[in-house]
Amino acid sequence: MTVARLTDSERDALLAELPEWQLREDGLAIVRTFRFADFSEAWGFMNRVALYAEKADHHPEWFNVYNRVEVTLTTHDADGLSARDAAMARAMETFL
Amino acid sequence: MTVARLTDSERDALLAELPEWQLREDGLAIVRTFRFADFSEAWGFMNRVALYAEKADHHPEWFNVYNRVEVTLTTHDADGLSARDAAMARAMETFL
Repeated sequence: MTVARLTDSERDALLAELPEWQLREDGLAIVRTFRFADFSEAWGFMNRVALYAEKADHHPEWFNVYNRVEVTLTTHDADGLSARDAAMARAMETFL
Repeated sequence: MTVARLTDSERDALLAELPEWQLREDGLAIVRTFRFADFSEAWGFMNRVALYAEKADHHPEWFNVYNRVEVTLTTHDADGLSARDAAMARAMETFL
């Protein structure tokens, strides 16, 4: 299924809405590094995201070591950012 | 707490025991990429590892996207590989 790519203005609005997120250099993804008190807290967050991801059938690229979680969101079917990434980024903020 | 670094012969024995694991270029870590059927299966594996990690107070560096899990094991307190990494790698194999 093809997914609509965000227009430039939609992307700019998203970045304005979510100032903690940065546009990746190639413009095709948004990234954020989360830091927690410890692994337990980081893993609790990641589990909530995992449940969201499975339900939404949209999955993050992410790296974890101890209390740090580095997230990259992009939509391969859109060759860039889509509304799915926007929704997931917003969901992550509610899990903090 | 200082943790003993594996000797060269201990490291070589570990790599012989776990042929799916590779020594990182700098020799300070072992790495393995796991591939699963889907995100659900990957996440199930990662949760088992997370419980192990928290109990052992030794945490992996890992990257996940959908069904792929890239793991790096090293012990900062040993400036390289220790028995903790060997134990965690063995544990991961039992979770497959």
